Amino acid sequence: MDYTLLIYCVLAASLLALGFAFYFYKSMLKKDEGTDLMKKIAAHVRQGAMAYLKQQYKVVTIVFVVLAVLFGIMAAFDLQNGWVWFAFLTGGFFSGLAGFFGMKTATYASARTANAARQSLNSGLQVAFRSGAVMGLTVVGLALLDVSVWFLVLDYFIPEGADKLIIITTTMLTFGMGASTQALFARVGGGIYTKAADVGADLVGKTEYNIPEDDPRNPATIADNVGDNVGDVAGMGADLYESYAGSILATMALGASAFATSAIEGMQLKAVLAPSLIAAVGVLLSLIGIYLVKTKEGAGMTELLKALSRGTNTAAILIAIATFGIFALLFGTDTNQWWQVSLSVVVGLLAGVIIGKATEYYTSQTFRPTQKVSESSKTGPATVIISGLGLGMLSTAIPVVTVGVAIILAYLCANGFHVEFTPANLSMGLYGIGIAAVGMLSTLGITLATDAYGPIADNAGGNAEMAGLPAEVRQRTDALDALGNTTAATGKGFAIGSAALTALALLASYIEEIKMALVRMGKALPNGVEAAKATLIDFMDAYNVNLMNPIVLVGIFIGAMMAFLFCGLTMNAVGRAAQKMVEEVRRQFETIKGILEGKADPDYARCVEISTKGAQHEMLLPSLLAIIVPIVTGLVLGVAGVLGLLIGGLSTGFVLAVFMANSGGAWDNAKKYVEEGHFGGKGSDCHKATIVGDTVGDPFKDTAGPSLNILIKLMSMVSIVMAGLTVSFHLL
Amino acid sequence: MDYTLLIYCVLAASLLALGFAFYFYKSMLKKDEGTDLMKKIAAHVRQGAMAYLKQQYKVVTIVFVVLAVLFGIMAAFDLQNGWVWFAFLTGGFFSGLAGFFGMKTATYASARTANAARQSLNSGLQVAFRSGAVMGLTVVGLALLDVSVWFLVLDYFIPEGADKLIIITTTMLTFGMGASTQALFARVGGGIYTKAADVGADLVGKTEYNIPEDDPRNPATIADNVGDNVGDVAGMGADLYESYAGSILATMALGASAFATSAIEGMQLKAVLAPSLIAAVGVLLSLIGIYLVKTKEGAGMTELLKALSRGTNTAAILIAIATFGIFALLFGTDTNQWWQVSLSVVVGLLAGVIIGKATEYYTSQTFRPTQKVSESSKTGPATVIISGLGLGMLSTAIPVVTVGVAIILAYLCANGFHVEFTPANLSMGLYGIGIAAVGMLSTLGITLATDAYGPIADNAGGNAEMAGLPAEVRQRTDALDALGNTTAATGKGFAIGSAALTALALLASYIEEIKMALVRMGKALPNGVEAAKATLIDFMDAYNVNLMNPIVLVGIFIGAMMAFLFCGLTMNAVGRAAQKMVEEVRRQFETIKGILEGKADPDYARCVEISTKGAQHEMLLPSLLAIIVPIVTGLVLGVAGVLGLLIGGLSTGFVLAVFMANSGGAWDNAKKYVEEGHFGGKGSDCHKATIVGDTVGDPFKDTAGPSLNILIKLMSMVSIVMAGLTVSFHLL
Repeated sequence: MDYTLLIYCVLAASLLALGFAFYFYKSMLKKDEGTDLMKKIAAHVRQGAMAYLKQQYKVVTIVFVVLAVLFGIMAAFDLQNGWVWFAFLTGGFFSGLAGFFGMKTATYASARTANAARQSLNSGLQVAFRSGAVMGLTVVGLALLDVSVWFLVLDYFIPEGADKLIIITTTMLTFGMGASTQALFARVGGGIYTKAADVGADLVGKTEYNIPEDDPRNPATIADNVGDNVGDVAGMGADLYESYAGSILATMALGASAFATSAIEGMQLKAVLAPSLIAAVGVLLSLIGIYLVKTKEGAGMTELLKALSRGTNTAAILIAIATFGIFALLFGTDTNQWWQVSLSVVVGLLAGVIIGKATEYYTSQTFRPTQKVSESSKTGPATVIISGLGLGMLSTAIPVVTVGVAIILAYLCANGFHVEFTPANLSMGLYGIGIAAVGMLSTLGITLATDAYGPIADNAGGNAEMAGLPAEVRQRTDALDALGNTTAATGKGFAIGSAALTALALLASYIEEIKMALVRMGKALPNGVEAAKATLIDFMDAYNVNLMNPIVLVGIFIGAMMAFLFCGLTMNAVGRAAQKMVEEVRRQFETIKGILEGKADPDYARCVEISTKGAQHEMLLPSLLAIIVPIVTGLVLGVAGVLGLLIGGLSTGFVLAVFMANSGGAWDNAKKYVEEGHFGGKGSDCHKATIVGDTVGDPFKDTAGPSLNILIKLMSMVSIVMAGLTVSFHLL
Repeated sequence: MDYTLLIYCVLAASLLALGFAFYFYKSMLKKDEGTDLMKKIAAHVRQGAMAYLKQQYKVVTIVFVVLAVLFGIMAAFDLQNGWVWFAFLTGGFFSGLAGFFGMKTATYASARTANAARQSLNSGLQVAFRSGAVMGLTVVGLALLDVSVWFLVLDYFIPEGADKLIIITTTMLTFGMGASTQALFARVGGGIYTKAADVGADLVGKTEYNIPEDDPRNPATIADNVGDNVGDVAGMGADLYESYAGSILATMALGASAFATSAIEGMQLKAVLAPSLIAAVGVLLSLIGIYLVKTKEGAGMTELLKALSRGTNTAAILIAIATFGIFALLFGTDTNQWWQVSLSVVVGLLAGVIIGKATEYYTSQTFRPTQKVSESSKTGPATVIISGLGLGMLSTAIPVVTVGVAIILAYLCANGFHVEFTPANLSMGLYGIGIAAVGMLSTLGITLATDAYGPIADNAGGNAEMAGLPAEVRQRTDALDALGNTTAATGKGFAIGSAALTALALLASYIEEIKMALVRMGKALPNGVEAAKATLIDFMDAYNVNLMNPIVLVGIFIGAMMAFLFCGLTMNAVGRAAQKMVEEVRRQFETIKGILEGKADPDYARCVEISTKGAQHEMLLPSLLAIIVPIVTGLVLGVAGVLGLLIGGLSTGFVLAVFMANSGGAWDNAKKYVEEGHFGGKGSDCHKATIVGDTVGDPFKDTAGPSLNILIKLMSMVSIVMAGLTVSFHLL
């Protein structure tokens, strides 16, 4: 049997996902958008969001063209193969497209969700959740489309040979780099946009003038709502496209190398296709999960939460079982490794659940840690900040230990519980780690739906507020948003955990790419070992990639620094843009007569412009650093230095990302806890102190934190693509 | 010639340092302590500080006894040698003693400094600086005493043999562990104490009641001043004792292993003694520097600054030159490596200066970054926090790159510019890195004086305020304090840089200790290589300490997490203790009648008690974690995991430490910038916003940040001492 045909299953799953996405989109459009005012507001936000995205794509296109030309030149000098520049462009294009579709849907869905929420909580849930599902299915559909089509194209064009699958998979990694580059710009640009607007709106409107969230008198309101769409929706879409595609691509590459010398015919090909098949089955299971999310009319919060959890949990349990089936079918007749590799997925899923629960424990106001942060507001904003930072730092322990245990268990499971460090055990173990990451993300179709519907509900709330709908509508959309936060914690656990595992898998791909570059150039390893026959361990020896090599250590230092530097740049960017916004909002409140009485319209457009310019301006430096630093490190420190850089960036970046996300989440909910009536409730000094915390938390959890996951992988991808250059020229 | 005699030079330098310390102490005591009220206040602070230190030593003694018993048991099972428990105790004892003497001097000097400042700025400087010099000279004197006496004792008792010097130097490292343990408790306990009091005093007194710093009406004032002594003085003394001794001990151990197979007679011994000789010469040069610090009567700030810089710069330049002389004398007749190794010191000193300048740039209000943080107060406390965090994160770039370049250059210089990664080049290179660290700290006698006199001046200001001295006295002590901050930046640069280099050197010592353990047990390496003949690179191969080994990666993850976890624990500790303080101070202001009019005395003792209890309670967990985690990691993950842990902790901890120190420093000075009259000056909204920043910065720069340097080294020391256990039992 020609196993290549299996890739058509992946293509079919991709089309199925896209088809359902389109169907959900169309049925959402059929819903009533509500009153004229609601329509007008939604149109405003939609236009603002689209205008921004257009601007952003313009800037990003320039970066992509420059890089594609660079890759073309590299190919001309035999430092890369000729497919790279084009694969890179498609990855970027599809990642952007995923964000674009998601955002388009969200901006059409917000008013409709608000309108549905006028009837009942459940109707609101249905519209918001199905719209979130559009995003989830679009992301997985486009990613699998890209994977399957590229595989077919490369399989057709690349000549047969022992290296064929390795060449195919490492080339496909380049489209991962395109996706990561796009995702980083989307997260950073969108994150700066939304947080500048949010911080500006909150600091002046809420704190200084005591007007509620999303009040139409606040000049930054429209910008704030546009920001939710470009940051939380479009940014997240591009981000998760990158995570999802990245985990599949990295694991395909690992499969190609782990089974390169397998004596069993077709084994290598099956190992390469396995990750995309798991993802394809995941699409089906996600659809089942999505259809499980429904409740009876008049259902309360607990039932809604149960409905959502039922959907995601069912999908997760089924994918664990399905993986055993997939590997039994693929490997079962040839080896008994099938159930061992499948166990890795169980490990990955369990790790995701634990991280998700820990995230919930540390960031939800129903648990002690966040309540304590809230309580510290009794002694003012400074103690809120100190306790929130402390909480975030403490909260890194469980995720890191969990990921650590998962790495070792997934590794041991996949290589048949062999502790000995041999090339074969290592390759199989790494493949298991990759498979665990793929398993964690395979049900992204539904987990992303539970994540993406939060911002939609949030925007629906904004629409309700601005359109002057009754308070109960706002309460319902707030309830939906809060509900989303809880289920999203699990989704975040999977995203963070899989990012760490994928980044590990990419390290092996880097070595594989170094090998390909040496083979292409006809060079041997520095210690004389023939490149084509060299194992991962040979590379470690030849390039002295051990912890006593000062070059490795310096690389690790620089990697650790990169994580902080990147966050510092994005934090400062938000700070600067927010300051401009604050000044503008203050100016309008002071100079536009009747604005506070609702008699005069604020100048919304000016605020949109400030956020747009701020984001455009400030996103370039941090994003370009992520591309330039790995290149320079390679040129100066060589292979050992690059591996150090990647490990340093991965370890520090991972911990820093958890810290920032959880501190930010806890501050947000500590504020909500006060708003629920504790410590004096809304308008009290305690409330003001927690608003300071929430404001600091905004760039933590929505700009710097989530960008770190992408940064880590982008640095790996850049190193992989530049491997040929590093091998040819390096100073030390 | 018997080169062992050279150690008597070190002993002599030690006695010289202690003699001058005693002389400066006595002449300080002869100064007039001022009015009766000044004496009374000083006595209060002194008693509070001594009472706290007694309490702390009690707790720490228990920990030391438990650990010493553990080491005794390990020795009984041949997992360590029989000297370890005792060496450990002496290290802890001397480290504590250095802090104790420093604090005793500081508490006697504060009123005297205030009194001298009544005459002139210069008189104040003389008293404060000479008292700081007592601390500097005590630290170096006690450390060199410990080094030289232990060397003589072990040289006498340990039988001759090829391994003799390696056994001596690795045993001596254990006293480094004692010093680190004591230092961590001192920094963490003292840091929690001082910041709980400081935050409590500021938040209620300054912000809520608008009364000035150190006002006697504030119930937390005495606790605040006691805190400055136990945290900034005693904590810093123990800390730098540890850094100074640690760098010498680690480099001695590197010398023993780098020259173990040298064919030249006496070469190994000379290499072992070289670091302590550099330190001994450093004592002399520090004394010269200290005597250079004097100005004409009526000198202004610029001249005072020049006087201080003249002292430290002269000492630094002279030590660079002297190092060439020392190595020329020791190695000159046998090899031409003498000038190459000496160059490493120049590299280290330059790196220290660059880091110091960068610290100054990012944290002084005379430069743009801190001014911008200050300016962000116009939009409230949230933007002050965001911009301060952003600044701190950005500020990590220069120190990390500088240390990275210094590591590579010091390495290359010492091994004769050989890039090839051979065992011999590696050993020599690491020795050079250690020598660079020793060079950076060799003039600690004077650099610590410029650091320690800051808190003395600060306390003098407190005394002046409480004793109701004229405002100009307070202005003078403030000026002295500010002056100290500038010169201290360079000192901090040296301390941070040398900590990173020392920690690197300790990695090699860890391997050396593993080797000793294997030899003691008569075991070979896991790959069969005979332990006694194995090189560092053999160990890397045998234990698979490379970046593809998942165990190494998990170790790195846990190390990165440890840095954050530790900071989280200390931040939360400060937060909790400060909250209690705030509540107590508020209670006193509300319930004690006439307190605000100065008619009734506040209950100072209650606040002192809260800080004491908070510090006692909260210091145990983070400190014990630093000891337990490396042991558990060793038992579970083995040698490869421990090395990962140390590298992860070192890289993330180093960057995190720089971030926290610089954010904290910038917030402090951003507040001062407002107080100088910008953005509305004292009492304005901007001022209040910057006070929030300063309050958050307190635990950053004075509790968590400085403890990280010790944490990094303590984890290495613990691993070294526990190497025997790790080799015998480990799960993976």
